[in-house]
Amino acid sequence: MEKLRLGIIGIGNMGATHAMNIFEGKVPDIEVTAVADIDPERLKWAEDNLPDAARFESAVAMMDSGLISAVLIATPHYDHPVSAVSAFERGLHVMLEKPAGVYTKQVRAMNAAAEKSGTVFGMMFNQRTDHIYRKMRELVQGGTLGAIRRANWIITNWYRPQAYYDSGAWRATWRGEGGGVLLNQCPHNLDLWQWICGMPETIRAHIHCGKWHDIEVEDDVTAYVEYPNGATGVFVTSTGDAPGSNRFEITFDKGKLLAEDGKLTLWELDRPEPEFSRINTEPFGSPNVTVSEVETDGKSEQHIGVLNAFAGAVLRGEALVAGGAEGINGLTLSNGMHLSAWLDREVTLPIDEDLYYDELMKRVR
Amino acid sequence: MEKLRLGIIGIGNMGATHAMNIFEGKVPDIEVTAVADIDPERLKWAEDNLPDAARFESAVAMMDSGLISAVLIATPHYDHPVSAVSAFERGLHVMLEKPAGVYTKQVRAMNAAAEKSGTVFGMMFNQRTDHIYRKMRELVQGGTLGAIRRANWIITNWYRPQAYYDSGAWRATWRGEGGGVLLNQCPHNLDLWQWICGMPETIRAHIHCGKWHDIEVEDDVTAYVEYPNGATGVFVTSTGDAPGSNRFEITFDKGKLLAEDGKLTLWELDRPEPEFSRINTEPFGSPNVTVSEVETDGKSEQHIGVLNAFAGAVLRGEALVAGGAEGINGLTLSNGMHLSAWLDREVTLPIDEDLYYDELMKRVR
Repeated sequence: MEKLRLGIIGIGNMGATHAMNIFEGKVPDIEVTAVADIDPERLKWAEDNLPDAARFESAVAMMDSGLISAVLIATPHYDHPVSAVSAFERGLHVMLEKPAGVYTKQVRAMNAAAEKSGTVFGMMFNQRTDHIYRKMRELVQGGTLGAIRRANWIITNWYRPQAYYDSGAWRATWRGEGGGVLLNQCPHNLDLWQWICGMPETIRAHIHCGKWHDIEVEDDVTAYVEYPNGATGVFVTSTGDAPGSNRFEITFDKGKLLAEDGKLTLWELDRPEPEFSRINTEPFGSPNVTVSEVETDGKSEQHIGVLNAFAGAVLRGEALVAGGAEGINGLTLSNGMHLSAWLDREVTLPIDEDLYYDELMKRVR
Repeated sequence: MEKLRLGIIGIGNMGATHAMNIFEGKVPDIEVTAVADIDPERLKWAEDNLPDAARFESAVAMMDSGLISAVLIATPHYDHPVSAVSAFERGLHVMLEKPAGVYTKQVRAMNAAAEKSGTVFGMMFNQRTDHIYRKMRELVQGGTLGAIRRANWIITNWYRPQAYYDSGAWRATWRGEGGGVLLNQCPHNLDLWQWICGMPETIRAHIHCGKWHDIEVEDDVTAYVEYPNGATGVFVTSTGDAPGSNRFEITFDKGKLLAEDGKLTLWELDRPEPEFSRINTEPFGSPNVTVSEVETDGKSEQHIGVLNAFAGAVLRGEALVAGGAEGINGLTLSNGMHLSAWLDREVTLPIDEDLYYDELMKRVR
């Protein structure tokens, strides 16, 4: 059977993890035929661990080598769209690590290049494979719970000690990552939030930089959003809380969903609240409610599931876990939160992308 | 044994409830010697149910009757400080239903009158007797958990159907109540929030009026606050969510407390997070944590506990459940949330009380 010949750009933490998963046979449709990294130590690691993969100091040289038909990009964030555009221009398929980029202006250009190329473009949003989040989305999209009223995610279980930030000079800098918890830890959650609840219309965020660590970027965020239908949401995150929480609650016209502690609980009303409120005559009446733990398929294939689907998309036209062009949504939330905090006011989506870029560059030293 | 001779001003829902608790012997140190209400139907109810209590159409006439040494004020909110000041001027002790008033300017004057009178002044903050909240406060004040970092209360289990609002023309109007969920349902929670966590320094609130009901005041609130030590907080409330939630989480330097589902859970670190972060060398290390359900005394004496303590304070100099002057704190949070939303900007405490009053009066029709 034909395999997808993959080149990995950047074999640091994540690139090496993906490479080893493939090397160990967990992604049978893919072989790593080449890797590229600017760091000689990383290439040495590849020589020792991936003897069959050609090694390049330059990503472009690897792309032009004829050894690969797809790239997996696991470089620092700013380079994501740069490498992706180079790949699209060469007709290569692209699997991109999160975040899609650092600023949406750049990601919008990348998405245009992807569309022009017509190749397969996927995002490494592995948490979309989680059985709980998939089930939440299915229930929301199914529509039986009615319109969303409130979406409150406390996602503070991203604890990082100072040693984490001290482990790389690029970490938690405007120049190296373009932000903190929103750019490094939260891209998954921001993507899931919009994947499940849709995109809000306005954002008012409060961000604290270097609050819990000796870093220049944000490590504490509280954001309030409003959706086109009038629903509201709160997103709270931090890398300073030990232990943090992960509690995602969505309230609907006809019930409530709560994802917490690895389970999904559903409160379902016997009729939508607005209908109950219209016909009920008891001042302290309330709709009848049934509570249940929602059954799921229990599967969470994570990174391996994303890579298998990517191979399936290239080789057999199957569905991706997350289309690459969707990466801009979560980043729009992230950029919107930063911009709101920087301007100290509410912002409306889509944000002014030039203004965002200018404000970001003021902070890059 | 001498009993406290109490006059109840306003024998509607709450006034009647208190009267019956006393009549049934649940508050042995108090006797209801008089009641006052402007509504003849209410006085008829008193005649039937409290035959030993003198009845007055005028609160002032009751206060001047010599039949009482204390009043319990359970009138509409705007009248709370008015009646209280009349009582203080006559040297009467006062037990005041929540909220302390509608706007802090008025409550500040009431507190000055209370201080001048030197009589006993208590607030009906019956939820301060709840075993969970008492224990939370004890743990916070005890200091072993260190500084507060985050205080997030989702208190949306105040569901009210339209029939509730239709049950009284004064309900949910700026003229009748001076607000919605913040003035009627949440005074307990706002008081507890500040009682346990202290007062914040700034408030940024987002308020929606008549969002879930045909009413003119707010029935949906999301507020973000910052405390003097830099801690942040979120308070979410609504009377539209069915079923709502009641989840109060406080994060500290050395752990986390969670009050939900009638129990209190404590996560305690073996050392404060800042100390761990300073000495730890593992990039993905995190402090050791012990989880436990906190034992409490299980007692929640509610209204009866507040009244017994009030009698004890008057007769024997014992401690109140909630001193009357403290009522201004929760109301300051409420007024601050309204003002922030009305001005569409952050407000700093103490708020401009004249501005608040002017803005409120713009809405009173």
